[in-house]
Amino acid sequence: MKYQFKITGSGYYLPPHIETAEDLSSKVGKDSNWIISRTGVRERRVSDIDVDKMGALAAEKAIGSKPPPHLIINASGVPKQTIPDTSIFIQKELGYEGIPSFSIHSTCLSFISALNIAGSLIHSKSYKRILIVSSDRGTRGRNFAEPESASLLGDAAAAIYIERGENENQGIIDSEMESWPDGAHLTEVRGGGTNLHPQDSATNNADNLFSMSGPEVFKYALPKVHSMIKRILKNNNISQSDIDLLIPHQASGRGVKAYSRFGGFNPDRVMDIVEKTGNCVAASLPLALSIAYERDLVKKDSLILLVGTGAGLSISCSIVRL
Amino acid sequence: MKYQFKITGSGYYLPPHIETAEDLSSKVGKDSNWIISRTGVRERRVSDIDVDKMGALAAEKAIGSKPPPHLIINASGVPKQTIPDTSIFIQKELGYEGIPSFSIHSTCLSFISALNIAGSLIHSKSYKRILIVSSDRGTRGRNFAEPESASLLGDAAAAIYIERGENENQGIIDSEMESWPDGAHLTEVRGGGTNLHPQDSATNNADNLFSMSGPEVFKYALPKVHSMIKRILKNNNISQSDIDLLIPHQASGRGVKAYSRFGGFNPDRVMDIVEKTGNCVAASLPLALSIAYERDLVKKDSLILLVGTGAGLSISCSIVRL
Repeated sequence: MKYQFKITGSGYYLPPHIETAEDLSSKVGKDSNWIISRTGVRERRVSDIDVDKMGALAAEKAIGSKPPPHLIINASGVPKQTIPDTSIFIQKELGYEGIPSFSIHSTCLSFISALNIAGSLIHSKSYKRILIVSSDRGTRGRNFAEPESASLLGDAAAAIYIERGENENQGIIDSEMESWPDGAHLTEVRGGGTNLHPQDSATNNADNLFSMSGPEVFKYALPKVHSMIKRILKNNNISQSDIDLLIPHQASGRGVKAYSRFGGFNPDRVMDIVEKTGNCVAASLPLALSIAYERDLVKKDSLILLVGTGAGLSISCSIVRL
Repeated sequence: MKYQFKITGSGYYLPPHIETAEDLSSKVGKDSNWIISRTGVRERRVSDIDVDKMGALAAEKAIGSKPPPHLIINASGVPKQTIPDTSIFIQKELGYEGIPSFSIHSTCLSFISALNIAGSLIHSKSYKRILIVSSDRGTRGRNFAEPESASLLGDAAAAIYIERGENENQGIIDSEMESWPDGAHLTEVRGGGTNLHPQDSATNNADNLFSMSGPEVFKYALPKVHSMIKRILKNNNISQSDIDLLIPHQASGRGVKAYSRFGGFNPDRVMDIVEKTGNCVAASLPLALSIAYERDLVKKDSLILLVGTGAGLSISCSIVRL
């Protein structure tokens, strides 16, 4: 076992407002069939509360009646504001104070990165209880002049509460990550930082919005993801059929289906919620995990594979024994 | 030892352009004596290259002739752009590819958070060699209508290369962090995220700039920092005189001097570079550490105390045996 821990709570928040492909049609100038066939997303949620409140609502479910965590990690794609980091605002919404808090950012892979870090911190006995919250409001950054990426994004938050475990077979068995800067231009929000600062006259409105070439990301990432999964399974002497549930980042309908279509996994064992939620940036992965718990698709001792691609372009996967 | 590792490389980049208090005077509408007496900053550097290039220049010095790291952590206050995270762009500038990369964000304390995480990841045998880069270009976000905070900020980058160590007495002995959301409003860049999005008509130019009430931060943080240092030293049976060098975040002249004036540390053992560099956000701490190495103020076996306050309001400290 690489990092011994147990997941003792999970929760999610999906905003009540549903926006269908029909609702979106006039905004992006494409009919609903185009939207659904291109993205695999029939509907997504649109939040009217900000990421900190969304994250806290998910976290409250993950915490339940358990004691406050010893550390709060925000693992989201886009912050509430530049400074301070979003973990502070989530802590504020939860009514806590004094709990160490920081953010991890690797865009859509932030949750996998955070789970690794939290696992390591628990394994090395630094903390006993850690809360990880991913909350993204991607619909705020949609560029309707880019119909495909604008039709992918949805809003959600999800949280996981992890604790030191007594069972040495529980936790992260192995994990891998690769970052490929030559794919950086494929998924971007170019503004919001020191490069194209909001105050610069050279900064266009589009620079502050999400831009992605889905088909190019797919083509670039497919062989890399395929190799990584084969390698990590082989290194750990685990076969595809040993994986009870593969939980991918919900990048797009095509992206999720690739794990069964090209990756050889049984479609029944690939968590697929993208049709109803869209791509919820960093929240997609813990959202899919939380829903898998809720639907009893996973339980204690289940072997899961978390995997995904994110802006960077980065690829990451973790084998977890629940 | 909490996390066993050794620092085998350090480096920094200070932009060549020096801006003195006299140069700044007309921009903030205060004379140079006001600037210097209020902030303790006589001059700061202003960069005309972006944070990724600055970070890579510092990292190249830290890496030297050593092999590429197995992980790159960007630990900065403000990103180059919203997506992807800055670690990708630093890796690109370094000419690497495929190295796992992500960002840690706890504003001015990002380096302490990252050193803890890197220490844990090395201690738990996940990686052998990790590069941490902090690069901030705070002068891009100065609000000249807020003379005090605008006079504090300066640009810098610094990097640390850490490796698994053979000596079980080397590494982080102990660390602590506290985050206090009721101090969140004291240090902010309110824009740049989902809250006051650059495209919102309600977002003012000032929302995208740095805002800090230095005196209030000082008053709020002083007793908390004091208690934390006393507690961590006591818990580890270490006396103040055992600390070879206290390396604080270079928040302000008054902030740095408080460790000797109120904290009881010998001024000769408190690293103080703020007069010449200003507050370089997350880069201040590793910059001070890198300069301490360069000036032979620390060497193998030195016991150092990294400590600081950051937006949040967060407080953090780590005792490290080099």
